[in-house]
Amino acid sequence: MNLLTETLAVIKPVDAALLQEAQRRLDNKTKPLGSLGRLEEFARRFAAISGSLEPDTTKKVIYTFAGDHGVVEEGVSAFPKEVTPQMVLNFLNGGAGVNVLARHAGVEVRVVDVGVDYDFGQAPGLLNRKVARGTRNFVKGPAMTREETVAALEVGIELAREAKREGVAMLGTGEMGIGNTTPSSAIIAAFSGKTVEEVTHRGTGIGDRALENKVQVIERGLAVNRPDPKDPLDVLAKVGGLEIAGIAGLVLGAAANRIPVVVDGFISTAGALIACELNPHVRGYIFAAHESVEIGHRFMLERVGAEPILDLHFRLGEGTGAALAMGLIEAGVKVLKEMATFEQAGVEGNTVR
Amino acid sequence: MNLLTETLAVIKPVDAALLQEAQRRLDNKTKPLGSLGRLEEFARRFAAISGSLEPDTTKKVIYTFAGDHGVVEEGVSAFPKEVTPQMVLNFLNGGAGVNVLARHAGVEVRVVDVGVDYDFGQAPGLLNRKVARGTRNFVKGPAMTREETVAALEVGIELAREAKREGVAMLGTGEMGIGNTTPSSAIIAAFSGKTVEEVTHRGTGIGDRALENKVQVIERGLAVNRPDPKDPLDVLAKVGGLEIAGIAGLVLGAAANRIPVVVDGFISTAGALIACELNPHVRGYIFAAHESVEIGHRFMLERVGAEPILDLHFRLGEGTGAALAMGLIEAGVKVLKEMATFEQAGVEGNTVR
Repeated sequence: MNLLTETLAVIKPVDAALLQEAQRRLDNKTKPLGSLGRLEEFARRFAAISGSLEPDTTKKVIYTFAGDHGVVEEGVSAFPKEVTPQMVLNFLNGGAGVNVLARHAGVEVRVVDVGVDYDFGQAPGLLNRKVARGTRNFVKGPAMTREETVAALEVGIELAREAKREGVAMLGTGEMGIGNTTPSSAIIAAFSGKTVEEVTHRGTGIGDRALENKVQVIERGLAVNRPDPKDPLDVLAKVGGLEIAGIAGLVLGAAANRIPVVVDGFISTAGALIACELNPHVRGYIFAAHESVEIGHRFMLERVGAEPILDLHFRLGEGTGAALAMGLIEAGVKVLKEMATFEQAGVEGNTVR
Repeated sequence: MNLLTETLAVIKPVDAALLQEAQRRLDNKTKPLGSLGRLEEFARRFAAISGSLEPDTTKKVIYTFAGDHGVVEEGVSAFPKEVTPQMVLNFLNGGAGVNVLARHAGVEVRVVDVGVDYDFGQAPGLLNRKVARGTRNFVKGPAMTREETVAALEVGIELAREAKREGVAMLGTGEMGIGNTTPSSAIIAAFSGKTVEEVTHRGTGIGDRALENKVQVIERGLAVNRPDPKDPLDVLAKVGGLEIAGIAGLVLGAAANRIPVVVDGFISTAGALIACELNPHVRGYIFAAHESVEIGHRFMLERVGAEPILDLHFRLGEGTGAALAMGLIEAGVKVLKEMATFEQAGVEGNTVR
């Protein structure tokens, strides 16, 4: 049995009794019942996922997976492909958006080369898990082989397993890969049956003509490859994304190891969607960081069954939304752990209903 | 000239040239143009308000104003009036929701007794600025005299002025006062012309019959007092809220002293609304922390012209939403200060439009 099959087999639904017990504790805190809204949801879900009513939140890590995309040669992105390795180096130097926001939230960023078409040599800090030097152009055939797909998934699963051993309390996903809104739109189109136009947007900022071209490219890719929505690995392999596969694996690994996982925006949710299609119990372990400007995102979120935490009109990726959402989830856990009860504070409870 | 008149006279529009200059800097950072959405808005507004392109954000303070309400004798709240001083002591002990969330965000909470019907003696940490022991029941006549109203406004103005002297970089508002959604609904009804039913909700959690009663109480209060929407001080005095007046004053003081001010939920926005009605330039200095569950809140936000930052279904008040929003605003400022530019990072810019 390979690591992927093994991981899929051990994922259980989130503990319902712990969810209830956590809510009972929240209901004794000095506040009107339910008045901290979604923060209470974050707290009880975090407690139930991690298996503790006083969960530790100290160690928080975002894995930012980087990969290149053959389909970029079709002119789908506003930026040249060289920007993928350039941004990887920017991450390693701490100068990118995700670095700034993660530092702010007390989150560590780890950068994973799962498929960049560039030789980084010995770049300090980079996790070298390269499966291939980018995907193939999916307009001409499958983006990845089935073997490459499983290998990239297992990169993510392994990282979640190592994180568990290290005592990481909360995981976040992020990505970098010029062109990667294109495979993400293709993935949600394949699963949802929505038209490509309904799920395809401007990515890093293409104009009207480039958007028209992007839609046609995805339509051609789906027609050529005919991905089977009942076989999530087939969808992933055909329209690809090595970094999307890595994210899917991290999400599966998080669920298998009972670690809450915060999924960033459009591309990350494409990965989370693959994970949920492979095993629906995964949904209980996911926090959706934010609602992206990309129009296909809400269809993904609906299918994953997740309500986004933030709506700040982000469309950057990298894990930027995840970093901020992790801060809010941690705040919820602190409400559970640190707020005084009515009894402790000598405050009278609700008397009129 | 009294402090209020003087303050209203010195409030200027936010510096448009600085807004532009801050956005220019953001546009050189290693990200697609505008891709950090509202975080970029926070950054440029914070820079323009504070008058610096590298604004300091270290010292952040929430002032939580506490006051009682005569109208509570009409049965408008789910909690007894004794809870106001009990919660003040909970704040001072660090056990309430706002304490937990403010600690998380690196924000200090200062509790101001502007009108609690309780003698705290020498409670350590409490700012004693008591104007009266609660308001009068507005069903029977004005909640406050014009003199009390101005005095409570000036408490907030003074605190903002002191904060400026201390080097506070960002202010937040919060409140505690059993019954205070009732004056808040009355205030927005008076200004907007909406029916009381359209702007009145369940507060801390009253049932259907109590809600019906609350609507009638507010209708009677408005009929008895006939507050003049063209005279914001008249509205504030008639339907009251000493803590609402304190918040209005803090917001005015923040604008006069060029300090960004983060307005919490429904009751705080009632205070901010008074400030904006007194001087429309105030709008530029306000960040709306979140969208409250209270149905009247969106009408207030529309009138203030502010888009809420968070939507976490909060209805607690105290400054809980402000604490979390302050963390996000600070994150935006860090993007401006800490992110690498394309040139610094050696990353190629947008080439396809």
